[in-house]
This record gives sequence, C-alpha cells and structure tokens, in this order.
Amino acid sequence: MKINFASDNYAGIHPDILNAIADANHAPAIAYGNDHYTDQAIDKFKEHFSDDIDVFFVLNGTAANVTALSTMNRGYHAIICADTAHIQVDECGAPEKFTGSKLLVTPSQDGKCTLPQIKNRLNRVGDQHHVQPHVISISQSTEYGTVYTFDEIKAIAEFAHANHLYLHMDGARFANAEAHLNVGLNTLSKEAGVDVLSFGGTKNGMMLGEAVIFFNRTLARDFLFIRKQSMQLASKMRFIAAQFHALLSNDLWHRNAKHANDMAALLAKKLSALPSMTITQTVQANAVFVTLPKHMIETLQEKYYFYVWNEGLSEVRLMTSFNTTEAEVNGFIQEVEKLL
Amino acid sequence: MKINFASDNYAGIHPDILNAIADANHAPAIAYGNDHYTDQAIDKFKEHFSDDIDVFFVLNGTAANVTALSTMNRGYHAIICADTAHIQVDECGAPEKFTGSKLLVTPSQDGKCTLPQIKNRLNRVGDQHHVQPHVISISQSTEYGTVYTFDEIKAIAEFAHANHLYLHMDGARFANAEAHLNVGLNTLSKEAGVDVLSFGGTKNGMMLGEAVIFFNRTLARDFLFIRKQSMQLASKMRFIAAQFHALLSNDLWHRNAKHANDMAALLAKKLSALPSMTITQTVQANAVFVTLPKHMIETLQEKYYFYVWNEGLSEVRLMTSFNTTEAEVNGFIQEVEKLL
Amino acid sequence: MKINFASDNYAGIHPDILNAIADANHAPAIAYGNDHYTDQAIDKFKEHFSDDIDVFFVLNGTAANVTALSTMNRGYHAIICADTAHIQVDECGAPEKFTGSKLLVTPSQDGKCTLPQIKNRLNRVGDQHHVQPHVISISQSTEYGTVYTFDEIKAIAEFAHANHLYLHMDGARFANAEAHLNVGLNTLSKEAGVDVLSFGGTKNGMMLGEAVIFFNRTLARDFLFIRKQSMQLASKMRFIAAQFHALLSNDLWHRNAKHANDMAALLAKKLSALPSMTITQTVQANAVFVTLPKHMIETLQEKYYFYVWNEGLSEVRLMTSFNTTEAEVNGFIQEVEKLL
Amino acid sequence: MKINFASDNYAGIHPDILNAIADANHAPAIAYGNDHYTDQAIDKFKEHFSDDIDVFFVLNGTAANVTALSTMNRGYHAIICADTAHIQVDECGAPEKFTGSKLLVTPSQDGKCTLPQIKNRLNRVGDQHHVQPHVISISQSTEYGTVYTFDEIKAIAEFAHANHLYLHMDGARFANAEAHLNVGLNTLSKEAGVDVLSFGGTKNGMMLGEAVIFFNRTLARDFLFIRKQSMQLASKMRFIAAQFHALLSNDLWHRNAKHANDMAALLAKKLSALPSMTITQTVQANAVFVTLPKHMIETLQEKYYFYVWNEGLSEVRLMTSFNTTEAEVNGFIQEVEKLL
Repeated sequence: MKINFASDNYAGIHPDILNAIADANHAPAIAYGNDHYTDQAIDKFKEHFSDDIDVFFVLNGTAANVTALSTMNRGYHAIICADTAHIQVDECGAPEKFTGSKLLVTPSQDGKCTLPQIKNRLNRVGDQHHVQPHVISISQSTEYGTVYTFDEIKAIAEFAHANHLYLHMDGARFANAEAHLNVGLNTLSKEAGVDVLSFGGTKNGMMLGEAVIFFNRTLARDFLFIRKQSMQLASKMRFIAAQFHALLSNDLWHRNAKHANDMAALLAKKLSALPSMTITQTVQANAVFVTLPKHMIETLQEKYYFYVWNEGLSEVRLMTSFNTTEAEVNGFIQEVEKLL
Repeated sequence: MKINFASDNYAGIHPDILNAIADANHAPAIAYGNDHYTDQAIDKFKEHFSDDIDVFFVLNGTAANVTALSTMNRGYHAIICADTAHIQVDECGAPEKFTGSKLLVTPSQDGKCTLPQIKNRLNRVGDQHHVQPHVISISQSTEYGTVYTFDEIKAIAEFAHANHLYLHMDGARFANAEAHLNVGLNTLSKEAGVDVLSFGGTKNGMMLGEAVIFFNRTLARDFLFIRKQSMQLASKMRFIAAQFHALLSNDLWHRNAKHANDMAALLAKKLSALPSMTITQTVQANAVFVTLPKHMIETLQEKYYFYVWNEGLSEVRLMTSFNTTEAEVNGFIQEVEKLL
Repeated sequence: MKINFASDNYAGIHPDILNAIADANHAPAIAYGNDHYTDQAIDKFKEHFSDDIDVFFVLNGTAANVTALSTMNRGYHAIICADTAHIQVDECGAPEKFTGSKLLVTPSQDGKCTLPQIKNRLNRVGDQHHVQPHVISISQSTEYGTVYTFDEIKAIAEFAHANHLYLHMDGARFANAEAHLNVGLNTLSKEAGVDVLSFGGTKNGMMLGEAVIFFNRTLARDFLFIRKQSMQLASKMRFIAAQFHALLSNDLWHRNAKHANDMAALLAKKLSALPSMTITQTVQANAVFVTLPKHMIETLQEKYYFYVWNEGLSEVRLMTSFNTTEAEVNGFIQEVEKLL
Repeated sequence: MKINFASDNYAGIHPDILNAIADANHAPAIAYGNDHYTDQAIDKFKEHFSDDIDVFFVLNGTAANVTALSTMNRGYHAIICADTAHIQVDECGAPEKFTGSKLLVTPSQDGKCTLPQIKNRLNRVGDQHHVQPHVISISQSTEYGTVYTFDEIKAIAEFAHANHLYLHMDGARFANAEAHLNVGLNTLSKEAGVDVLSFGGTKNGMMLGEAVIFFNRTLARDFLFIRKQSMQLASKMRFIAAQFHALLSNDLWHRNAKHANDMAALLAKKLSALPSMTITQTVQANAVFVTLPKHMIETLQEKYYFYVWNEGLSEVRLMTSFNTTEAEVNGFIQEVEKLL
C-alpha cells in the first residue's frame, strides 16, 4: 500500500464525517436542500462566519469557483487571477465555457497575485473592444501552499471595490490558510472584504462537497438557478449537508487543517536539514515544494504517491492531509536519507 | 416522521451501498478516477452490459444527460424529446446553456415520444436558418412511470440511425424500467440501439452518482474533458465508484428497482379498488399518478410526502422507492379509506 | 428576370439609401461608431421616438434580437414567444447559444401571442428546477403579416411588468406595422410599454443594418460590450448610420412600408376575387398567405419568386416590398387567371 | 477635415467597390447567398486560390475569426496565439463566449508567434484537468504591421499538423502581407499549410465584409449553420459578394494593399531620417510604430487621426490605407519637422 504525499484528495473521509453520513440515513428527507440537515449545516456556517451570509452547497471545487464567478460576471467581463490559479490551469476551461468570460492572468512565482500586477491588468476600462475586468479571484491558500495575510487580502479587496470589481476567493484549502494564520474564518474572509468565498470541504476530510458563501448577499439572489443550471444541485442534499455539519462541529475543520499543516511543516523542517535539496516555496499550509536529487524520485515513487512538479528543476510537490501521520513523515525522511 | 411517497430521492442510502463507501475508506487512493475502485466498478458495468462500452461517472442526473448530449451535439443541432422530458422541464435550461442547442419537443400524454411525433419534428433538414435535429432523447422509465418496450426503442433507434440522428436514453430510472420488462440491461439499451445511456444510481439507493454509458464508443473519445469542463469530475472518485460496484453486485440494482415497482403496483391496485379515484397513467415503474378527492390531499400531506401534480385535476404523484414498505402502502390506503 | 414576391429581402437598396452611402464616402471618419454620421442617425431616431432612448446599430435581424435579449436574460431565464416567432424557428438556435436561455413557446395560428397563452407559460416561478420566464418577445408585424394593435401590446406590456418580465419586440418589419396602424413609431413601442425594440432596416430598403432601441435605458448600460462580443460592431459604422439617416428622413421609412403594405392589400384583394383560392391570414402588413391550386404553383415559380409555406395545404406566401409595382401585382394576377 | 493615419477602417469605400454595390442593385436577387453575385464572387476566390476551397462571407473581422475557430474547436480545446493577437485583445471575449475555449497566449514583441513559444504552450496534452490545445492562430500581417514569411508559416503549419493541431490565420490584412511578399495569395495560405483563413475585405477598401476560406474543407461541412447561429448571415448577401467580386477583380485587392504598404514605407523612411524618433517595429505592411517626442503628439492630433500606442514610451501607431496620398504623408512629415 503506497503512502500518500500526492494530494489531500487522495486521502479518504474523516471518520466523524462518515458517521455523519450514516446518521443522516435513518429516515426519508426532502430532496434538493429543503431538509433540516441542510438547515442545520447552514446554521453552523453562520456560527463560524456570521448571520449575514448566504451559503449553498455544490459538488466539487471547480463548480464552487465557476458558480461563484457566474454570479459576478457576464461574458464580456474578465476575471483577474494568478497564472497559477486553479481556475486558470486546472479546470479545463470551465470558467470560460460557463461564464463566457476571459481570464486575465498575472505572472506569479508563489501562487499569489500582487496589487501592482493586478493594477497592470486593469486597463482599457470602458473600451468596447476589450473585456472588462469585473472580478479578482485569489486562492487561499494558494496552489503553492502559500497564504495571503489578512492585510494582503484587505488591500486587494479595497482596491477591487474602489474600482468596481468584486473579490472572489478560491478557498478549496481555506481551512489550511486559517489554521496557519489563526485569525478566524470570518476575519479572513468577510472582514477582509471578500465578496464570495468558495469554501472547500473535500480536501479537508469530506467525501465530496464544497460551499459557496456570499458575504455580498445581493450576488446570491439567483444562485439557486445558477447552481441548478450548472448541474450542481444534489438531490439527496442532506448527505452533503451532514458532512459540512460534522466538519464545522467540534473544530474538526480546524483540527484537520492544522494537523495537515503541521505535518507539512515537519516534513519541510526535516527535508531542509538534509543536503542536496531545496525547499522552493514558503511552507505555510499543507504543501511542501522541494527539489530532490533526480535519481531518488523514481525509487521514492514506488512507496509514495507524490507529483513531480517541475521535471526540469527536479522539483516535487509533497502534500499532507488530515490523516498524514508523523510516522509517515519520518518514514519518508528515512527513505530519502537512505537514498542520499 | 413523515412517510415518503414524494420521490425516490427522498429515500436515503441503501445499507449495502453505505457499507461500500465505508469499505473504500481504509487507505489512500489515487484521485480523479485512476483508482482500482473505479476500475472494478467499470468492470461490473461491463459484466452487465458488455465489454464493448465506455462508462464514466458523474455527479447527478442533469449532469449525466447534459454531458451525454454534449458529446453528440454542437450548438446548431437540436434535441428532439417529449415535452415532459426531464431535460425539457426540470433541468433549468442546463442543456441549452451547456450545449447551446435548442430542444424540439413532442406533445406527450404518457411521457413517451412516438415515432410519428418524432418524424414531425424532423423538418427543415439542411436549411441554414433552422436548428438541425441531431439527437432523439427518450426517458426510460418516463417521468410518468411508463416504460418503453424493447420494440418501441428499437423502432426509434432505427429511425434515428436511418436519419443520421443519435439516440440518447435518460435512464435516471433505467433499473425500474428493466425490472418491469425483465429483459436484461444490455438488451434494453445497447441491443435496442441506444447510443448513449444516462444510467441512474441516486434514485435507486445510492447517495449520489450517475453513469454515462457509451455504446457508440466514438462519442466517448473526448468525454474526460467534457466531464471536467462540465464540473463533474469527482476528486475522490472511488466513493462514487464503490457505490456503483455495490449497486451492480448481488443484483442489488434489480432488487431495489423491483421492490419499488412492486410497491407502486400494490399501491395502484389498492387505490383503484377504492371509489372516487382514477389512476391516470399506466403503472409500470415506481410511480402512481392518481386523482384524489381534493379535500383529502392536505390532510394526507400532514403524514405523507407526495407531490400534487396537477392542481386542476386534483392529480397527485405517489412515488415508491427501494425502502418503501408494504406497511407504508397499507397505512396510506387505510388513511385514504378513512378520509373517503 | 424573375419578379419578387418571395421576400422583402430579395429587394435591393432604395436609391435614396444608396445615395446616402455614397455621400458618406467623401472623407475619412472615425471607426466603430464615434463619427458624426452615427450621431446624426441617432438624433433622427430620437426625433421619431423621443430623447429618452438609447439606440445602437447591429448587422442583421437575428443579431438585433439576440443582442437585445442578452441585455435582459441570464441563462436560467426563459423567453416566452409564439411558436412561429423568428427567434424560435429562423435563427438556428442563436438565442439559445448566445443567451443560454430556453424559449417557451405559445401555439399560434396568426403569429401572435395571446395573453392567456402567455399566462399559461408563466409557471413554476421560483422553482429552482425550472427556467424562469423573464422576457416576452413579440413580433410586430408578425411572421404571418398580422399586426398587434396598440391595446394588445399595452395589455401584454402591463402583464409583463406586473410579473417582473420585460417586453421585447422583434420589429424587423416594425415600419410595416406602423404604416398599417398609423399611430406613430413611438406610440406603438415606447408608449405601449415595450422595453427594447429590434427596429428593422434591411427589409425596408436598406442594404443591411438593424437598430436596437432601448426604452428601458437601464438595459442599455453594457450594450456596447454585448454588441462587440456578439460580433456585431461594424468598423465602418458610418455606412450603417448613413442608411438609417436616409431611411428616417423625408418619411422614407413610412413611404416604403406603406407602399409594400398597399401592394399586399391590392394583391390580396385581387386574389380573393378569384375562385379556388383562400387568403389564410388577415392581410395587414406586407405579406399575403394564400392557398393556390396545386397545379399552378410550379408554373408560377418559373416567373415569380415566392415560397410555398405549407405544401400540404398548397399554401404560399407572397411578400411585397418597397419596390413592388402595381404592374407586377397585376401581372401576377393575370398569370394566375390564365392558369385557373 | 482631419487626415487619417489612425486606421485602415477610418478610410471609406473604394470607388470601384461602391460602383459594384450599385451595379448589383438593378433587380431582385435571392436572399441569403443563393444568388449569382455570390456564385461569381466565390468563383473569383477560386481563381486566386484554387478550386479546392470553400468560402463563405461574414460581416466583420471578429466574426470571421470566431466562426472559423468554431469549426475547429470544442469548449475544452484551447487556441494558441500571440498575446498581441486581435482575438486575444480586441474582440471583447467573443472567442471565449462563442467557442467556450481558453486562449493560451505566447509573449510577443513583434506580433508574431515563434515555434519555441508555441511548443511551450503545448503541454498537459491528454490531462483531463487542462484545456487541450487544438488550434494555432496567427495574424498575417500582424497587429504590429509585421509579416510572417512563407517559411515561417510552413514551419508552424508542419508543427501544428504533426501535433494534431489546426492552423488558423487571421488575415484581416492578408492582402497587405501578400503585397509585401508578393508570392501569391494561395502560396501564402493554402500552400503554406493554413487550414482556415479569415480573409479581410473591410480594411482593404470594402464597406464591410470578410471571407472565411477553408483549405481544409472537412472543417467547412457545417459552416452554414455556424454562420447563421453566429448571427453572421446577411440576407441581402449579394451586396457583400459584389464587393468581394470587385476587390478580387483587376488586381484591386493588390493595388490597394500595395499602395497602403508603400505609403507606410514612405512614412517610415522619412520619419527615420528625422532626429528624436525611433521606428519600433519593422515596417512591412501598412503600419508604422514610432516614438515621437511627447510634446508634439497632441498638436499633431489636431490635424491627424492616429493612436497613441504606448503612452509610457511615447509610441504612436500610424496606419496607412488604400487612399492615403503621398501628399498626406509629406504633409505629416512637414508638420513633424515644424514641431521638432
């Protein structure tokens, strides 16, 4: 059995969440979200964020992003994002197909958009020949395991709103970002000025399910229809809802994310103590990007799942999850040491 | 606790399927369908149909239909279907939005398309001003609980292929149709001439998950990309796959569907023995359409979930599922008798 | 040389309009509509309608309709129209492709939508599974040459606005409708409650060019971008604008339309005096629908362009235009008499 | 009256072309392209290219590109082009909206794509998460007035076809490119390996109209429907066709383009002889990019139409057209000299 450092979605379902699914299975329930499991899960979100939100469940991360963006964008609008963003490189053109919009990308080394780069893409406003930037989309944590600070988000949000743009946050790993900064879910989103948040469940221990949270509630007005037309309405919704309820109860979301982050930090610390390897991105969430001597990659992959990120640089991505163990980290380090 | 005659998606998860989810949760697995649970589930489909198919999992029934249709249609094509079809009345325009195509509807009393009606919609072929019919889509069983015979499907398929059209089958309740006719899954689809089948899981006891089965395998060529761009790629795919594996093992799919059908038949038989009510559709799958005296509807809805289908006619839809019990049917009849 | 009773777009360019194109060709002009020809044409529209409009030029009738509808509709909305509407049967699915919306059709014998039929399509409001009607689109004059009265339009507009719907008018032959009723362009559109009007130029003597007129100016806000993204921005816009300026000057629009109507009326009068033929639609604008003895159709088509509308009924459509002559009408009648 | 160095679409209609419109106006003609003017124009294209083509007329350059790309692309495909391409920066997202596809851009200084850059964008082939490159689109001449050589195009075409990609050429100024290289229209397109060519008419003296030429005729199969659904079917098609017939007769296309090129060359030659200004792009077609001392720009713009291209660099674009005169060039130079 291979050990997983490939992705947090190679990990399975957290036991508490699996139990929650089973617990929701004792009687019939109204379909399509009009059930009390859904009501309770929404209440949990309101506890963690605030009452002043609208929240809806969808089926995967791409869908959370695309349906969120659909509420903000018409076809002639554009979305500014990093060239590393999931919406740009990993969604097979779903944002373009479904919103009709162009993505305007900023070059990024660490997964983040910077304000000067964003400003640089905000041009030809009012020019009928050119798409009109309307949304900034940032990933928190980023695809490189880095985390925007509260101040960074706030500055982007203020710039966005001053320029009639919305701020969307792809939070497929939002819990990991929060667990790193420890400032509170609401602070790191609503208070920082985010308009709509894609809140990840799958990568943090759920079987599947993501939430779209509207802090700008006007944008939520027609979301029921956008969700359905986007093929994202689960008929047995209660089983998505029950998972979220469990995730948001007893700090499970935080414990899962913090554990994953801690394992990444441990891995990074141990790797950086070894010769011939370089950590290439600041380790803040649950990913470690590191260059490994070329010869050891293939051997390691016999026992471990992980991705080669940049073949030229011999850079690999090691990702931890809620169920990564310290023993697994130590085992990996020993294996690397053996191969050095 | 209300009793469910509203829909087969008010029912929960069959215990065997829930166990299968739990059983798939003991170790990490490669994401996005490259895992052995997915391989095994696909093998199960091949056992029931044939080796000469391609099969993919998606997240709900609307998505199964829309992604299937996307493989057959360009925007200027049209889809011929009954005016009662799910794709026409219950998918919030997802087919139009995602395929860009118009739906050309045939008037239907019983949920079926007839050949003369289909021929009637196949006009202006080659006329650049008019959408070009390219697919016929039929529902099996229909939204009215009726079932196409093998011969009916074969005739439509032959007409379709003789006229350069594809035949799509919306089989959200395909198992119920097969359980009614008892001719075999493959006979009722591939052998009858269906090109692509949306094969339902959710309504037959799964938590969520549908399959798109290609008998015309050329159409499957780019389906991976269509699925991803349609926001239908589950990262932890094994948990969809494991459900399908369980559903297709030990005849569970058939037992569940047959039970639901039997309960509908029982309900219909008992209702039709009562005065003042008329069964309005032939009961073949798991739905009973019946006119009830107006005064009893509200009272019944206090104890039972069900939908009023046609307020004017005082017609309601009663739907059974894998976990409807004979006691529930009898209880409902007693309640009706009491109110008569 | 065949004589044209096929369509008002078999006719060429009115000489005054051709002259206007030539007159606009004496010096360079700013491209994309920022020229004084465009300003002047817009002023002409304001003279005929009112100052309180926004008006834009596009390249053909399908585009006028689709871009207009795009300002009112998101994908999950629906458009209610007659089953005979150009947007339903003659635009090759452009409305669905570009707006993502479904069309909900009302059955029509004479090309009009009636209020009871419209009401009938306005159902499942707020139901997330179903497209949400958002626009009523009517054709004035209709595809059958019939004309809505002011009161009919007003009633539909009032119903629309009372139900949070917009009213779009496909006025590819709006001039013909006005020339029939003689109540003024503004009365028959803005005052009747129309939100957006597709105002036809091509069928009334222009080389090409249609206008989209917004009475509900909020809807015009992003039209520049919708037009460009719809591939409808003419670079040498002045040559569209100059045509409209000529059309709206010296009552040319009215003279052209009235002449076409008069020729249709004459044709209808003479045909109805003959045995063995039936006028099948009230002749109000510039079309005559008539059943002709089957044997004469082919012979007539050797000398005359016209369309067989309904082969089964032996019904043909005869259409007149600004340059149909009385001699052509008389010649046609003589030919028919000869063949009787 | 300002003099035009802004764009070739500020220029009007060439007299021969205006006459051709008038000449086509003497009798009715079948609408929608089934007329002999259209046949004759198509024959003219076959004379210049070869019999082995399909050619269709559309209404503007954006439409020529988007409809051409629509024949090659499904939504999950991607289009590789220069970051300066018209389809990327000047079409308000029409390619994304209509094809659903992402554009993958190569950084460009001179408007061209190079093979190494193209290869760099051709990655993640077969990866379901990522759009699949399917078309390379190059502009000839480019938006910077530079021209691909025959060999450059051939190399790109061979790479494209070896990698299962199509080659599209945006030839809004294809005539200018040919007039620069003088190798023949067919050589520079079909023989070089282009699959589909957007052939410009408007910028070379037409009122409006562009042609889409298919050398890969399989791609043309459904173009009639794509054109109509893209709102690009002109009803009075003959007036577009007649313009193309005139343009392709008596070498008018070549004379117009060569004249524009010669005027740009003259302008560049004279400007480069002056102090304080730098020609920033090789002048091959009809555009001159030059840095002018900042103080003179505003003054010059009182008498001349031209665009400031890069405010930071004080770079302007001067564009010539078929009706730019030597006197206008000399006048501009004198004006500049006066301001130096």
